Amino acid sequence: MLKHRLLTPGPTEVPQQARLALARQIVHHRTAEFRKLLAEVLEGLKYVFQTQNDVLLLTSSGTGAMEAAVVNLVPRGGKAIVLESGKFSERWRLICESFGIEVVRLEVPWGHAFEADDVARLLQEHPDAVAVYTTLSESSTGVGHDIGAIGRVVAPTPALLVVDAISGAGAMPCRTDAWGVDVLVVGSQKALMGPPGLAFLAVSPAAWKQIESIQRPAFYFDLLAYRKALQQPDTPYTPAIPLVVALAETLRAIRAEGIERVWARSGMLARATRAGIEALGMKLVASRPADSLTAAYFPEGVDGKALLRRLESRFGVKLAGGQGPLAGKIFRIAHFGAVDELDILSALAAVELVLAEMGQSVKLGAAVAAASRVIAEAAPTAAGIGRCV
Amino acid sequence: MLKHRLLTPGPTEVPQQARLALARQIVHHRTAEFRKLLAEVLEGLKYVFQTQNDVLLLTSSGTGAMEAAVVNLVPRGGKAIVLESGKFSERWRLICESFGIEVVRLEVPWGHAFEADDVARLLQEHPDAVAVYTTLSESSTGVGHDIGAIGRVVAPTPALLVVDAISGAGAMPCRTDAWGVDVLVVGSQKALMGPPGLAFLAVSPAAWKQIESIQRPAFYFDLLAYRKALQQPDTPYTPAIPLVVALAETLRAIRAEGIERVWARSGMLARATRAGIEALGMKLVASRPADSLTAAYFPEGVDGKALLRRLESRFGVKLAGGQGPLAGKIFRIAHFGAVDELDILSALAAVELVLAEMGQSVKLGAAVAAASRVIAEAAPTAAGIGRCV
Repeated sequence: MLKHRLLTPGPTEVPQQARLALARQIVHHRTAEFRKLLAEVLEGLKYVFQTQNDVLLLTSSGTGAMEAAVVNLVPRGGKAIVLESGKFSERWRLICESFGIEVVRLEVPWGHAFEADDVARLLQEHPDAVAVYTTLSESSTGVGHDIGAIGRVVAPTPALLVVDAISGAGAMPCRTDAWGVDVLVVGSQKALMGPPGLAFLAVSPAAWKQIESIQRPAFYFDLLAYRKALQQPDTPYTPAIPLVVALAETLRAIRAEGIERVWARSGMLARATRAGIEALGMKLVASRPADSLTAAYFPEGVDGKALLRRLESRFGVKLAGGQGPLAGKIFRIAHFGAVDELDILSALAAVELVLAEMGQSVKLGAAVAAASRVIAEAAPTAAGIGRCV
Repeated sequence: MLKHRLLTPGPTEVPQQARLALARQIVHHRTAEFRKLLAEVLEGLKYVFQTQNDVLLLTSSGTGAMEAAVVNLVPRGGKAIVLESGKFSERWRLICESFGIEVVRLEVPWGHAFEADDVARLLQEHPDAVAVYTTLSESSTGVGHDIGAIGRVVAPTPALLVVDAISGAGAMPCRTDAWGVDVLVVGSQKALMGPPGLAFLAVSPAAWKQIESIQRPAFYFDLLAYRKALQQPDTPYTPAIPLVVALAETLRAIRAEGIERVWARSGMLARATRAGIEALGMKLVASRPADSLTAAYFPEGVDGKALLRRLESRFGVKLAGGQGPLAGKIFRIAHFGAVDELDILSALAAVELVLAEMGQSVKLGAAVAAASRVIAEAAPTAAGIGRCV
């Protein structure tokens, strides 16, 4: 009867409303009923992504949509700039390489963020680059990038800006149009609170122009087929119908709260989490932390894998470990979607208790107190000026 | 309060057990709990497909798995034989062409079936063909192919046999290994009774050898990544977790009934459906009908689209119309998965009533009677020798 508390940066807890929607009998996808629902979902996604661009819905993991953002934009032998500083930005490079695309790689160590100046310099050196690939929130390190600043240096060049916002969109400011993002890639199972299995692309007019102009090694991921289907709206192939139905529920909740408030809430939880972690003397991984998730190094001398296992077996608290060079060294905790203040405080309390049980010297309550102070500062006053001011 | 009766050849009705499983809270996919479930699902799929080959699970529509079966086997400039006689076998050709593969097309009119002799002749003419692409059950026409016979002529050649069994597997005999099928492609939303969003490939050792030997324009659909993940078992990218959980439920039901009995039951429903349709004087589309679905021409002088609309608005009975050259001319009805005798009989009764309401001369009860006779003949006797003998 262990209570499960899923705090990984995707998949994330799916709210009850959405899970009950999953249990409804299947509606056929070539019907007015489903098209109306799909239209609502696409509008909801535009709102969350802050875009007027076309939004396309794919039945695939986020990686499928990343592939679509590569093969539809850069032809074989073309050049792409990849800003690489973690597992998921590395994936941009691996996808490009799989399709014979020349990659110009800008690398900073995992945990560091890119500066717009470095991107500007690279664009000057490579005026023939078709696109710049980067991430809003790098889930492997917890780094959040200043996409607005990067957008300003990409805008005057012919290059297109492609952003993996899989774990970022819906958790932290993501102003697709204002920032000049040509292709935004998002997944269903992060801040959008849906189950995994759907991925989304927001495609700018400039990106469509490029897509129309090239030959692509794509069929399932040929975005022109998805654009054509938007007229209904529809999808070119049978979509994961229940996942669309569930997403309609979570998008309604996001719209009802208001995206700026949702961003503010995730940001507050992120600050609270960081304060709690630092109160325990642990070091953050990210030089520029994202509001979607926090990554922190295990304390010196602690068996991190044992810590994560114990958090799960003792309290049902599921955090994520590290990937690649950070495997075994860090843990990651999400604060987006359905995660709320008490989820964060109880996870911090669990970390304190398990560290103590593992023989570490811990001041019990220190992390919870530090995080609570951040929450209290952001809390509504008696004057009722709102939750997230 | 209209009752919905989904009888389209995919998506199909999802049984309550599976829908309630969809509503469970998300389990993280990198856990022992999920791996155990995935292992069970893969074993269940092997049983349904009657194979010892590796079975891979993809998060995509069936079309995604078709693409995987093309790009992983035939290199750009390579040659493929495509047996084309409907919307879905045409898709094999379109995918091949998208990836610069030379297609040798064997065509018969929609509604007709291929003979093994024709395939043998083509293989002799094209000894350099890497693979033969065909369908077990062509969903656009209701044709079922004799894959066993086709397998016998492909086996002595170097060509690999690739079969789209998306609507066939789980509905009609599908003996992957006995028939020498090198790559079988199946979708979750047909006879397997799951929601759409998952697709499966069963890959033979000979197919793996070919896959290992070529360069492929693939990342998300690179099957080597899926094979590597089987060691856990796992998936290379976040899968549509609830769909896997639901599929475990439906596969348990199939195993409990026994696959031969499931095939016999679909076959019986197919015979009953055909008898009912013919009793109304309607003509079947397929020269060699599949056991998974039935396609029939609308009666002369009947506005078919109006008939389908009225079936839906009057009785909630959702049948599928025609595609491509058969659009507006035919309807299609599934008899796999959760569809049972009374679903078929009531759909036939609805067709009778709506035809009468549309002013056609119909002998009410004729289709139901003819179908009932088939069902009665197949029914268990008092001696209780079983349902599907």
